[in-house]
Amino acid sequence: MAPIKVYGGHVSPAVRRVHACLHEKELSFESVPVDFKAGENKKEPYLSLNPFGQIPAFEDGDIKMFESRAISQYVARVYADKGTQLIYTSGKELAQMLVWMEVETHQFDPVASKLIREHLVKPKMLGLQADPAVVEENEAKLSKVLDVYEARLAQSKYLAGDRFTLADLYNLPCMAYIIDSPSKKLFESRPHVSAWFADISSRPAWVKASAP
Amino acid sequence: MAPIKVYGGHVSPAVRRVHACLHEKELSFESVPVDFKAGENKKEPYLSLNPFGQIPAFEDGDIKMFESRAISQYVARVYADKGTQLIYTSGKELAQMLVWMEVETHQFDPVASKLIREHLVKPKMLGLQADPAVVEENEAKLSKVLDVYEARLAQSKYLAGDRFTLADLYNLPCMAYIIDSPSKKLFESRPHVSAWFADISSRPAWVKASAP
Repeated sequence: MAPIKVYGGHVSPAVRRVHACLHEKELSFESVPVDFKAGENKKEPYLSLNPFGQIPAFEDGDIKMFESRAISQYVARVYADKGTQLIYTSGKELAQMLVWMEVETHQFDPVASKLIREHLVKPKMLGLQADPAVVEENEAKLSKVLDVYEARLAQSKYLAGDRFTLADLYNLPCMAYIIDSPSKKLFESRPHVSAWFADISSRPAWVKASAP
Repeated sequence: MAPIKVYGGHVSPAVRRVHACLHEKELSFESVPVDFKAGENKKEPYLSLNPFGQIPAFEDGDIKMFESRAISQYVARVYADKGTQLIYTSGKELAQMLVWMEVETHQFDPVASKLIREHLVKPKMLGLQADPAVVEENEAKLSKVLDVYEARLAQSKYLAGDRFTLADLYNLPCMAYIIDSPSKKLFESRPHVSAWFADISSRPAWVKASAP
């Protein structure tokens, strides 16, 4: 059977999200580079895999997908009997998992992405300086979001319930980049968020997904 | 048994998404107003329902949720045997449904929300004029997004497969507002998107959810 393929370099948080999910499920896969400098992502055949020209894209036999969270959910459901059980399927835990997956998407990710752009993309990839006003504005926004995480994690070991799920995993790639930046102070001042991040970022699947 | 409660006025696209989902499932519910002018959304007890102070929030017995797409998925799964079947649970259709739910969230909604702000919120609620540069920029972005929808809907009657699912429903609230604005031209020039929208917006559940 053809191997699972994941397109795109694993420096991308979205690609790394999919790698972490596949490692949790103990599934082997082929990582296929996409040459952005050559514009490969904006041409066929790549556009047939992801019509928005973004990474990742994913192939598993005749299943072709894009969007990292969609791929992660598909893998978690279809390979339910492999590796870590990454989802809840009923009750309050299902409700909380669904809520916290959307919280990551709508509340955390937009702010985190702006901070990553200032702290990492601009200085390390574009040769530009971070804009202190943008950092300050987004740190203030992230503080409010993390207050809500802190309150949740004071009540519950993981975001959905008493075990690790996709709701936690979704946060890992961008959070790990921010914790490796000057904005890490926002985490250090919140003990439940800090303890939770230390726990989930030490999972072997994440260590493997984020290795250089 | 206590009725299902949905908090927030149905002029909000997010609240309307949940109402449409509940009508599809033929579930009765109580609509509970939240007084934004009085700041009710930023105080207890509302913050216990939605810690971000946004609408909607949802209660079904002891299940308390927020985020419209999380609520919709919960309702579609837990009330699987009621009303319209709104999800696929396996195969290519599951994969496509998951992809297109994320496309709505990451590609369509951010651009649509900006156009709704210019065309509706600013002139009708804030007494401000639309900014033509913002409209132009976001119409250009929306055109590219709708080209991808057009290609998908040329191959498939609905976004996930041959029947209506949450992947379609998610789009209804913001799309209906845009089609009622000067940006409707972007839809008229795309026959498959137009036919699909005419179909999904004539569903009785949506007609009921969007009635004044």
